[in-house]
Amino acid sequence: MRIVITGGAGFLGVRLARAILACATLTDARGRARPIREVVLLDVVDPPDLGDSRVRGIAGDLADPAVIERAVTDDTDSIFHLAAVVSGQAEADFDIGMRANLEATRQLLERCRRLAAPPKFVFASSLAVFGGPLPDPVPDDAPLTPQASYGTQKAIGELLVYDMTRKGFIDGRSLRLPTVTVRPGKPNKAASSFASGIIREPLSGEVAICPVARATRMWVTSPRAVISNIIKGHEAPAAAFAHTRSVNVPGIVVAVEAMVEALRRVAGDAVADRVQWQFDPAIDRIVGTWASNFAPKLGLALGMTSDADFEGIVRAYIADDMPQR
Amino acid sequence: MRIVITGGAGFLGVRLARAILACATLTDARGRARPIREVVLLDVVDPPDLGDSRVRGIAGDLADPAVIERAVTDDTDSIFHLAAVVSGQAEADFDIGMRANLEATRQLLERCRRLAAPPKFVFASSLAVFGGPLPDPVPDDAPLTPQASYGTQKAIGELLVYDMTRKGFIDGRSLRLPTVTVRPGKPNKAASSFASGIIREPLSGEVAICPVARATRMWVTSPRAVISNIIKGHEAPAAAFAHTRSVNVPGIVVAVEAMVEALRRVAGDAVADRVQWQFDPAIDRIVGTWASNFAPKLGLALGMTSDADFEGIVRAYIADDMPQR
Repeated sequence: MRIVITGGAGFLGVRLARAILACATLTDARGRARPIREVVLLDVVDPPDLGDSRVRGIAGDLADPAVIERAVTDDTDSIFHLAAVVSGQAEADFDIGMRANLEATRQLLERCRRLAAPPKFVFASSLAVFGGPLPDPVPDDAPLTPQASYGTQKAIGELLVYDMTRKGFIDGRSLRLPTVTVRPGKPNKAASSFASGIIREPLSGEVAICPVARATRMWVTSPRAVISNIIKGHEAPAAAFAHTRSVNVPGIVVAVEAMVEALRRVAGDAVADRVQWQFDPAIDRIVGTWASNFAPKLGLALGMTSDADFEGIVRAYIADDMPQR
Repeated sequence: MRIVITGGAGFLGVRLARAILACATLTDARGRARPIREVVLLDVVDPPDLGDSRVRGIAGDLADPAVIERAVTDDTDSIFHLAAVVSGQAEADFDIGMRANLEATRQLLERCRRLAAPPKFVFASSLAVFGGPLPDPVPDDAPLTPQASYGTQKAIGELLVYDMTRKGFIDGRSLRLPTVTVRPGKPNKAASSFASGIIREPLSGEVAICPVARATRMWVTSPRAVISNIIKGHEAPAAAFAHTRSVNVPGIVVAVEAMVEALRRVAGDAVADRVQWQFDPAIDRIVGTWASNFAPKLGLALGMTSDADFEGIVRAYIADDMPQR
């Protein structure tokens, strides 16, 4: 298998690459189990050295066809398209969001269409494709009525992935990821960035601001669970899908105040008390448009799983990603 | 009001222009009733002379920003975006469909965004945005799971129209039109073209081929009714919409064999017997993905209406559009 991961220098991209490299085989679009021959990490910044000779990094703008041409060579078997401008930034700058989330996705799909054989195409979509009044929990076939530009761009990507799959250009799968927490590193411009910050920063001895109401519920997943589910989305047979290629990836529903209480149980009062509640209407408005409770059926049928509880998510961060003192 | 109609040389475009010119006033995006000052007909072919000094024709490619720039001047109040590559052609040639139905729509929306004041933007969408298993009748909030490229491109247009409305760039309305029949003139590459042909050709003394099964049901509207409904979609106050700007435009459900029986009642056996049943799987497959029975609520609330029955649609064609012997 020759595999391209866009957003390959990012947190999820690197973890996905490591998980793929640890697989004996993956299944190509013709259903054949094949060993991992090459993993290309494509990103705007230089991808890190993963210490594996099968990994190749390419730095460049994904909206540039020449960059795509270089990364997605004719013998590419699978593309994992994770690269995106995050929700807060796509809302603040419409043009940047359209370019990175819509144009780049189209360019990439067009390149895939010209390969010798249709590749698998795993598109990282988002629960942000849902919005407006929705049933609670949200069923798999709820209408897509996104209420922010990021979700709009992801919904358009899903439509393109399905249509191009139907036409036989690719074997696409759009995975609507829950909010991934706890992410290591620095805050980013995602409206959901605080969901990592309120765990990560207090554990590092720093104060963290929570910009949404305590009762705000979110649909979340640990990095561990989501990486496993992305690979399951890749491995699922085409016949497991019906009249779309979109999957609501399993997660758990948790209120923001329950996140902080889970942190308290794991790490104590002194840590949990570093969370400060400081309402930010711009962030609350975006997060408030997202559905928070889902009843995924297809994802479970594909073998995807969710975390047991939020305490487990906090403990996974401490074990996997927290910087050691 | 300065109004631009794309697809302005087409059958619906010309009829819409005439109907608009007959209005004393239309309502602009600020809610002001204003007289019709100029109507620009933009199309790839030269628009016809409507004999009204307020009409201006512009011929050019809608995917060319310079053409859009020329038509959509800074003082434009409303755009009716009817231009599209039809369903059969968009399915047969993916690139042409993407260029005309997606790229041109994006270019047009980008131009609208740069106007001095956000214009009204009426987007001619289609029932083809629906597909796959659906409730019967289809409610207004059914999920968009198009099963052909035309419907995919229209669904993407709707998402863009809503997001750009939400951002305040335009005052958009996406009208999901039923199949419009009886259209005068020649057959085109729309998969639904036969729905006009099986009435129009027999009335002109010619044989017509019906390429779908007799029991196939379709959601149809007369040109009269749909033009009236398009104007109502333009006139509706922004507050009449909620978390989308999409409207299922009223129509009537009719089986193809019932269309022919209506023709028989209006014009006699000799005429109706000119319809020949010759199954075409490519056309049947596209038409078969469309929903045929709807329960529109929002459209009716906006004052839209449907034809009384298919006989009335046949009689309207004879009165309005049939070439006189």
